[in-house]
Amino acid sequence: MNADLSAQFAAFLDNDEVVAATPDLLIDQRRRFTAAPDVVLKPKTVDSVQRIMRYCFERKISVTPQGGNTGLCGAAVAQGGVLLNLSRLNRLREINLADNSITVEAGMVLQQVQEEAAKAGRLFPLSLASEGSCQIGGNIACNAGGLNVLRYGTTRDLVLGLEVVLPDGELVSHLQPLHKNTTGYDVRHLFIGSEGTLGVITAATLKLFAQPKSTATAWVGLPDIDSAVGLLSLVQGHFAERLESFELVSRFALELSAGYSSLPKPVDAEWHILMELTDSLPNDSLPDYLAEFLYQHGFENSVLAQSEQERRDLWQLRENISASQRSLGTSIKHDIAVPIAEVAGFVRECEPALQAAFPEIRVVCFGHLGDGSLHYNTFLPDVMSNEVYEYEDRINTIVYEHILSHKGTIAAEHGIGTIKKHWIPRVRTAAEIALMRAVKAQLDPHNIMNPGKLLPDA
Amino acid sequence: MNADLSAQFAAFLDNDEVVAATPDLLIDQRRRFTAAPDVVLKPKTVDSVQRIMRYCFERKISVTPQGGNTGLCGAAVAQGGVLLNLSRLNRLREINLADNSITVEAGMVLQQVQEEAAKAGRLFPLSLASEGSCQIGGNIACNAGGLNVLRYGTTRDLVLGLEVVLPDGELVSHLQPLHKNTTGYDVRHLFIGSEGTLGVITAATLKLFAQPKSTATAWVGLPDIDSAVGLLSLVQGHFAERLESFELVSRFALELSAGYSSLPKPVDAEWHILMELTDSLPNDSLPDYLAEFLYQHGFENSVLAQSEQERRDLWQLRENISASQRSLGTSIKHDIAVPIAEVAGFVRECEPALQAAFPEIRVVCFGHLGDGSLHYNTFLPDVMSNEVYEYEDRINTIVYEHILSHKGTIAAEHGIGTIKKHWIPRVRTAAEIALMRAVKAQLDPHNIMNPGKLLPDA
Ligand SMILES: Cc1cc2nc3c(=O)[nH]c(=O)nc-3n(C[C@H](O)[C@H](O)[C@H](O)COP(=O)(O)OP(=O)(O)OC[C@H]3O[C@@H](n4cnc5c(N)ncnc54)[C@H](O)[C@@H]3O)c2cc1C
Ligand SMILES: Cc1cc2nc3c(=O)[nH]c(=O)nc-3n(C[C@H](O)[C@H](O)[C@H](O)COP(=O)(O)OP(=O)(O)OC[C@H]3O[C@@H](n4cnc5c(N)ncnc54)[C@H](O)[C@@H]3O)c2cc1C
Repeated sequence: MNADLSAQFAAFLDNDEVVAATPDLLIDQRRRFTAAPDVVLKPKTVDSVQRIMRYCFERKISVTPQGGNTGLCGAAVAQGGVLLNLSRLNRLREINLADNSITVEAGMVLQQVQEEAAKAGRLFPLSLASEGSCQIGGNIACNAGGLNVLRYGTTRDLVLGLEVVLPDGELVSHLQPLHKNTTGYDVRHLFIGSEGTLGVITAATLKLFAQPKSTATAWVGLPDIDSAVGLLSLVQGHFAERLESFELVSRFALELSAGYSSLPKPVDAEWHILMELTDSLPNDSLPDYLAEFLYQHGFENSVLAQSEQERRDLWQLRENISASQRSLGTSIKHDIAVPIAEVAGFVRECEPALQAAFPEIRVVCFGHLGDGSLHYNTFLPDVMSNEVYEYEDRINTIVYEHILSHKGTIAAEHGIGTIKKHWIPRVRTAAEIALMRAVKAQLDPHNIMNPGKLLPDA
Repeated sequence: MNADLSAQFAAFLDNDEVVAATPDLLIDQRRRFTAAPDVVLKPKTVDSVQRIMRYCFERKISVTPQGGNTGLCGAAVAQGGVLLNLSRLNRLREINLADNSITVEAGMVLQQVQEEAAKAGRLFPLSLASEGSCQIGGNIACNAGGLNVLRYGTTRDLVLGLEVVLPDGELVSHLQPLHKNTTGYDVRHLFIGSEGTLGVITAATLKLFAQPKSTATAWVGLPDIDSAVGLLSLVQGHFAERLESFELVSRFALELSAGYSSLPKPVDAEWHILMELTDSLPNDSLPDYLAEFLYQHGFENSVLAQSEQERRDLWQLRENISASQRSLGTSIKHDIAVPIAEVAGFVRECEPALQAAFPEIRVVCFGHLGDGSLHYNTFLPDVMSNEVYEYEDRINTIVYEHILSHKGTIAAEHGIGTIKKHWIPRVRTAAEIALMRAVKAQLDPHNIMNPGKLLPDA
């Protein structure tokens, strides 16, 4: 921390906008990176954000925006300069039922956005395990995904309008809920997923939806992933947008989770699907309808949740996988996606390749088959804690090469940050990277916005 | 036409890729603009497009991409250089049911995309009155909207992946159907809505949906637009994504159309809503359910379509408005949208302002209330044919000033082209325009791609 710089900011900000650097702001979610900013600021108004940016632009002081600090790629870790924490810029600006939209400031915690929508009788569908602490501004900056992308899309699809303070302090505000609008190149989508490198998101207008009124939940056992993909096509052709979740669980992942949860395995099989339909109209016969559909198409190794308790138990088995695998040690996680038609081939080929390099390696594979994104977590049994990162590059290379040969992506929803930026040249052409750099240079000529993140080193 | 230039292209293209300049390619849809290219090319392969672009880039020859030439803003009108018509680059590349996606080349006519989806038992929802001749590449270049944006979004929301030939001939191809993918700035969205100014779209991977199995259609009479907006909120809160159309019709528009169609007016009222619900599951009771809902909420001045014939008659009344208004003369059309909550205020204020300037003016107002976009067509009774364009600027100024004061957009779905580019500085900040120019300069340093369109003159 730099007392002199703090005093400079205190001269034009409210006293409580210049704050102490506490560990929760400095140490990242995975306890892997520690920030070392010169000063930590918590602006309470957009005007304060503008004044901070103007000051930093003139003096070429770097600025790292920070939301809930739940990111998993080291993207909100400041090295020098200003750590700009948005948590106090968190007001509800408007709920608009005619346009089915909500306008909130960037620092509002995701769960509060959900709650504000619910108070108005609507659903804001974005949902992640970190929703109690991540902020909507962070979700937008990462284009977060989560549990129901299959039905509602990623954060990108939920943003109607953005308000952004540019690196030079200028405000660009387009918060009208316009459902059709094409007036020149779409700049909004550049900011979504830009991980704080192009400007500070200060507010957003988001889409709302009707709340679900009926639910049907099934657990289906299958011999292989190809059968699961076949089931997905059938269900999508028939139940369409009612399909909200279509989760894949391997035998090994289920065994870990069932043990951890003290719950019985619903069925015996190599691969498992947890599937949920919802309907915005009351519809008591939805579970029966789903049961009949599964039976008719020969998916008999399945159970339907007959009560809310049974439903919760099935979801426990899915949600406890992460916790249950901790007994295996520290993992190297992969946030990957492939076209759904490629999931089976990827899984079939990648694990043997990993085992050839690391005979002891264990893979816990599960994820959102409905949108092709997988949690592909790898464990080296005798390697403890952060020592595992010594093997990260070799393991990543094997996993990512298989991902790329199956037309997939090395970053589905967690972003690039510092840990994946050297992979960008493998997934984007030189012309695209040059375009990204031109966008960056135009908006941020002094490279003060979150330097060292997302873009590969030159 | 320039015979020398044609010969140069013929030297490295197939003979039939260099074609004659026929009126259907040169005169725009509204018979307002006539193109004067030096040469017209119809490439059959992506490789040909790349060779053409490389040749033009080196020699700084301008290139204007053209799809079905149905655009309404003069955006596909070439002045000199190459008119690059995409109609022969029109193959189906892949249908992928696991990923619910279709990959087609840019020159495929929209209706054929719909048909290919239907053959696979799926729906491609984009639907416009020009669907028999506009091309999917043109739809993407304009970010077309159409009839069911309320439910499925605009073209932007339907594009999973793009293949583009850049101005220098380089290919950027991302056609994998990835449902989650965030690896750097989202360049795809820059091309969507760029009206041919950044590169040539050669193929796209598009989202498919389930086909609707049940329909309920109602016509509701209302005293004012505010009541219609209230009804929309109620219906969205209850029927959610089942709501596919929510069309507004004024008393005057209905009178014109009913006379033209020789059909009775369904109900008597100042304002009318044509509303349609669809469901991807068979559901015979949907119409009864809608009737009950309308009755319960006091919307008793309404009729439900009791047969497919009655449904078609209601839609005739809506669809014939355009044809029926031709009796009023040549119109100045406005492709506008406002937040839905602002529609009533806009309509209330704009017409008196127009009448103050042009006492004889007639306004035909109708449109997609469900997404806030309006057809706002103005007629000057004694002004014939293209003479009306003399008044365009004055009328536009009144309409657009009202649109802007109601937080709306001057270009909802038809694009900017040549006719609206001088309005861009009113709706985008200087910083945004500078960013657009930086993007353009990076990709197209010699300004050869569709020069003079979309971006305001410097
Ligand atoms: C238990 C757990 C579960 C998770 N599950 C998911 C999941 O299912 N899906 C998923 O997508 N992610 C998931 N994540 C990752 C993470 O929560 C999300 O990426 C989230 O979107 C980050 O939000 P945040 O507010 O914490 O951002 P931070 O971590 O604070 O910041 C992340 C990035 O956004 C930038 N940023 C933050 N706010 C702003 C702003 N206002 N303006 C400009 N830039 C800004 C930062 O500079 C940084 O680059 C999970 C994380 C945890 C810990
Ligand atoms: C009767 C009628 C009804 C209409 N209804 C609607 C409606 O409801 N909603 C709506 O949004 N629009 C509507 N339109 C406008 C028009 O049809 C659409 O905008 C359509 O998307 C244009 O497609 P096109 O293939 O005809 O493009 P064109 O007119 O040929 O070109 C339009 C623009 O796209 C560019 N372009 C075309 N192909 C490519 C390519 N492959 N790569 C790069 N650039 C390209 C051109 O350079 C030009 O800038 C309507 C038009 C008519 C005539």
